[in-house]
Amino acid sequence: VSSFKLTIAYDGTGLVGWQRQAAGTSVQGLLEDAFAALDAAAVAVTGAGRTDAGVHALGQVASVTIRRSIDPESLVRALNARLPPSVRVVDAVGAPAAFHARFDARSKTYRYRIWTAEVLSPFERAYAWHVPGPLDVEAMARAALLFEGRHDFAAFRSLGTEQATTTRVVFSSRIDAAPPAHAAGVPPIGGGSLVVFEICGDGFLRHMVRSMAGTLVEVGRGRRPASAIAEMLAAGDRARGAPRAPAEGLFLVRVDYA
Amino acid sequence: VSSFKLTIAYDGTGLVGWQRQAAGTSVQGLLEDAFAALDAAAVAVTGAGRTDAGVHALGQVASVTIRRSIDPESLVRALNARLPPSVRVVDAVGAPAAFHARFDARSKTYRYRIWTAEVLSPFERAYAWHVPGPLDVEAMARAALLFEGRHDFAAFRSLGTEQATTTRVVFSSRIDAAPPAHAAGVPPIGGGSLVVFEICGDGFLRHMVRSMAGTLVEVGRGRRPASAIAEMLAAGDRARGAPRAPAEGLFLVRVDYA
Repeated sequence: VSSFKLTIAYDGTGLVGWQRQAAGTSVQGLLEDAFAALDAAAVAVTGAGRTDAGVHALGQVASVTIRRSIDPESLVRALNARLPPSVRVVDAVGAPAAFHARFDARSKTYRYRIWTAEVLSPFERAYAWHVPGPLDVEAMARAALLFEGRHDFAAFRSLGTEQATTTRVVFSSRIDAAPPAHAAGVPPIGGGSLVVFEICGDGFLRHMVRSMAGTLVEVGRGRRPASAIAEMLAAGDRARGAPRAPAEGLFLVRVDYA
Repeated sequence: VSSFKLTIAYDGTGLVGWQRQAAGTSVQGLLEDAFAALDAAAVAVTGAGRTDAGVHALGQVASVTIRRSIDPESLVRALNARLPPSVRVVDAVGAPAAFHARFDARSKTYRYRIWTAEVLSPFERAYAWHVPGPLDVEAMARAALLFEGRHDFAAFRSLGTEQATTTRVVFSSRIDAAPPAHAAGVPPIGGGSLVVFEICGDGFLRHMVRSMAGTLVEVGRGRRPASAIAEMLAAGDRARGAPRAPAEGLFLVRVDYA
């Protein structure tokens, strides 16, 4: 019996998300099927974060225990040989049997990408939210900072999901007007610029980052003042209705452990 | 009657290439159909370079003449509303009726991207050739320089195509071990590095850049010395058999005019 910590990258386009569903292709399902073939038995793979349909990951982390013993390098090769090119195991390391990718995670970092040029680059169409027109990036940056700290994020979650507690700690929350880095490594098509929202916290409610990104764009468009964030945090559940940004702009960047 | 110079970007994945074919979706076909709807007549669109199936473009240029008069900004919007998100008209400017995208081009710049990490990033799978393992980038750089100048490139073209002349002038030919810039703007997955071959010349034979890239990778792997390039150029047709790199790594970056 051996246990592993896996680091996984995936292009979420066309996937139903991390979690195995009744229908559609999930990352968990693909990994569990690959492991089952390898271990000749049913294998459960636990992910650190349940990314939704269309959401991408650069460094999702998963824990798994299998019956056979195999060195990590061979495991990476064997899994990637069975996975589609849209899902890659980037790294595997041996882990204690008790390691749990979700419960043991100290922090997760998400990135949300917003493309503001009039014309959306064909190479960005699955990896950014297209918001043509100018955004007040400084107001967005001021607003983003208000997410930092321990808050009740009830206003920034999906309707219809109930968690025991909606209080989370955000360690950092920043807006960057980054020069776009696209697949071909050249200056942006359409003279556009990319606005990137990056947030690190101890945990996230369902749709929390997308609700934050949607609200930040409203601030950037001048439809809400930056201070609206503080009011929504204070109002909690009563402030529901934060607009949700689409899945394609969201990336789970990394998960950190003690 | 008005004529335009269009700049077009496209993700070549799943397309049969620039040129209209009997079957499959081509960039020229998509554009001509969009123009036909706009102009209520058949419209011919001429591209600067006939990119093959799977090849991408950041700055393809096309010339077109239509019956109606329309300002360039409205034209860009009207065309993009009719095109799929994988094909975008980035810019349109008025042009003299005599402007011909192919005959008037002074130079074209192509980029070929090679991913050398053991694991291919899911976000690079349609935009780079995966060549895992170390490459001798310095030998590749020395070899690439040998393409510069006026040469008979008969050894670096597709079999079965006949051009009146196989002599072309290459203005610059460089290899760069660039830090990869991928869709999510983060350091590379799998610890990998990207080797980029960029070439600018007055014209290119069919499959010429991919044959050059394939030969440069053989040099990088130590299977041919850098000097093999000079021998292949000197031998011309008799040296046929340069290995052809796959389409997905190739980008038409720009086309320049007087």
